[in-house]
Amino acid sequence: MDTAVDSSVTSCAAPAKGEPYLLTPGPLTTALSTKEAMLRDWGSWDGDFRAMTTQLRRSLLEIAGDTAGNYDCVPLQGSGSYCVEAMLGSLVPRDGHALVLANGAYGKRIATTLGYLGRRHTVLDKGDYLPPRGSEVERMLDADPSITHVVAVHCETSSGILNPIEEIAAATAKKGRKLLIDSMSAFGAVPLDVRHLQCEAFVSSANKCIEGVPGFGFVIARKGALLEAKGRSHSLSLDVYDQWDVMNRTGQWRFTPPTHTVAAFIEALRLHALEGGQAGRLARYAHNRDVLVAGMHELGFEPLLDAHWRSPIIVTFFAPADPAFRFEHFYDLMKQQGFIIYPGKLTVVDSFRVGCIGQVDADVMRRVVVACAQALRTMGVEHAAPPGVALEERQLLAQQV
Amino acid sequence: MDTAVDSSVTSCAAPAKGEPYLLTPGPLTTALSTKEAMLRDWGSWDGDFRAMTTQLRRSLLEIAGDTAGNYDCVPLQGSGSYCVEAMLGSLVPRDGHALVLANGAYGKRIATTLGYLGRRHTVLDKGDYLPPRGSEVERMLDADPSITHVVAVHCETSSGILNPIEEIAAATAKKGRKLLIDSMSAFGAVPLDVRHLQCEAFVSSANKCIEGVPGFGFVIARKGALLEAKGRSHSLSLDVYDQWDVMNRTGQWRFTPPTHTVAAFIEALRLHALEGGQAGRLARYAHNRDVLVAGMHELGFEPLLDAHWRSPIIVTFFAPADPAFRFEHFYDLMKQQGFIIYPGKLTVVDSFRVGCIGQVDADVMRRVVVACAQALRTMGVEHAAPPGVALEERQLLAQQV
Repeated sequence: MDTAVDSSVTSCAAPAKGEPYLLTPGPLTTALSTKEAMLRDWGSWDGDFRAMTTQLRRSLLEIAGDTAGNYDCVPLQGSGSYCVEAMLGSLVPRDGHALVLANGAYGKRIATTLGYLGRRHTVLDKGDYLPPRGSEVERMLDADPSITHVVAVHCETSSGILNPIEEIAAATAKKGRKLLIDSMSAFGAVPLDVRHLQCEAFVSSANKCIEGVPGFGFVIARKGALLEAKGRSHSLSLDVYDQWDVMNRTGQWRFTPPTHTVAAFIEALRLHALEGGQAGRLARYAHNRDVLVAGMHELGFEPLLDAHWRSPIIVTFFAPADPAFRFEHFYDLMKQQGFIIYPGKLTVVDSFRVGCIGQVDADVMRRVVVACAQALRTMGVEHAAPPGVALEERQLLAQQV
Repeated sequence: MDTAVDSSVTSCAAPAKGEPYLLTPGPLTTALSTKEAMLRDWGSWDGDFRAMTTQLRRSLLEIAGDTAGNYDCVPLQGSGSYCVEAMLGSLVPRDGHALVLANGAYGKRIATTLGYLGRRHTVLDKGDYLPPRGSEVERMLDADPSITHVVAVHCETSSGILNPIEEIAAATAKKGRKLLIDSMSAFGAVPLDVRHLQCEAFVSSANKCIEGVPGFGFVIARKGALLEAKGRSHSLSLDVYDQWDVMNRTGQWRFTPPTHTVAAFIEALRLHALEGGQAGRLARYAHNRDVLVAGMHELGFEPLLDAHWRSPIIVTFFAPADPAFRFEHFYDLMKQQGFIIYPGKLTVVDSFRVGCIGQVDADVMRRVVVACAQALRTMGVEHAAPPGVALEERQLLAQQV
């Protein structure tokens, strides 16, 4: 993965006065023009809106590198997790067996979802942040020939880790199984090119690296997989085959689409292309992350992950050992300075997260660091160094590289 | 139902230049201030957004007349049909038996959904537009004691009929069964007061009579019914109990909410209250309908339904018998004049539909009629009278009053 810093990144306009930056894994700070695209109403049956749907599907397939026309894009109303459930319910056969690679909340949610669907599944649970490796996947697939599908999370925002999707894909393909990817927070910035990465399907949402507003997600799947999905879904609303079939025949979403969100997404796609597509966006996000981590390091803050695993999406920092640090107070102080940060999700040590995605640039990241310093002063925290146990945690991860 | 015309209705601002009015059952023409509420980004974890969610739930319960606190409101991401599925999957037990009262596409969709869910169901199919009556419901419930739930559509927009929900509710209660209502296109304008109408739950969506933008819906259910729903849903995403439980414990939506749509809805609720709530909105919509039907009648157009059954939501008109009339051409001519109308859904005769809801008033309706007259002239249709078979269809309905 190329995470070289590109100094020519576009600068981002500030949000309206009084509106904080959202440094979260979504909802994000979006461009004003993206939001302004929502200032009109569209008839969902009308040809103008159908053309927008066609354009949206085509653009997403282009970003996914589907030049051969082997895949199709099925947008679906609801949040990203709805799309994950739709993919699982439609693409894993009722007598299938899924191996779930979990290292955080989203991997666990996949297992929970398969439980609802009554699909047999085995979980490789790596805990809070350790990466599932290709060699492990190979071993598990060798040990259980009944496994038909591997389900992986591309970027697990619980910790901010960028999972090694290439080696997972290679291991899955080598063993003749099918790969389903939750690329919710990665697609559009982190490379996911179906010409190079063998996968049956993946999902993402409007409100992540494409920088649209929340309201729908999409499944990008091999056409063969979509055809096989007929009659398989547990749910009418989340039936990917049916949505695909109706959309191909009529150009319409089966049920009322979030028209304003779709209009915003068309503008978001325009801005994405203007920035240089996936590569351009990755450059900005990676630069955001690097500026953030360097500045926070100056204050004594340590990131959970070392550079090898650190995604350009969101960074987990250990909470300072100093007893004067309380996250809720820190959150409020940051919000007063115009920044919404995110709580942590680690089970062993306290942490918090800062997102690098959305309409934010290196200048914003520098101001985040200044705001952190101010918040620490206000709380009376002298140094942001984490407790020793936090750094012991990190050593576990260092052995994984 | 009180459909008295109120001459003091508020006037509606025109959409932006070049933007047509949406005379459909949704998406609707919404107020500019509703759309402008989407010009900022909200963090879904943040307290400000949680307060908006609380306010939204409380306002909807007030509109439903739940002064006793027996019900709760569970907003859910996705389209209205997602909410119908969520209600069915969560509130009908796996060994339940639902009687579905169908007279159009939405009743049929309920039956299809129950099929996906593997829930036993019996359909009373009244065809294209005949109303299911209380006496029929009573007879069917007497004949089959295994039926646990009755599922009814409040306003079936396929024809525009306002189904006799009061007599259906009375019959269901009399026979000791539970009533679930799809009030998608009615709630907020047509009275649905849980103090007077005995029901287990109903659903509606952001983008109907409250005049928000599409992106979520909501289930309003008896708290007892919500408690009993634990562990019952076929779907994690559509698990009403789980959404309710998490929302009550954290103030948050389980998965990323459509934040902009929620912000728009808060403004839409303000405008709804300003107009006099449900009664004020009903007055405007009913007046819209009456002005439309009277004007169209002058041109020779006949509505499918006679006044007793005609909802203030959407009106079906028979297509003219004149062979020069083609719907696609008519649609384009209306669109050129700034009005998006809707195709019909009758199986026996050709028809089209014109919606009366959204930010449209009597003046707009008068202009719709003028545009229709112009379209007929352009097509060379001399008179808009329907074929004789259409009027025979209507006589079937007249016997139902």
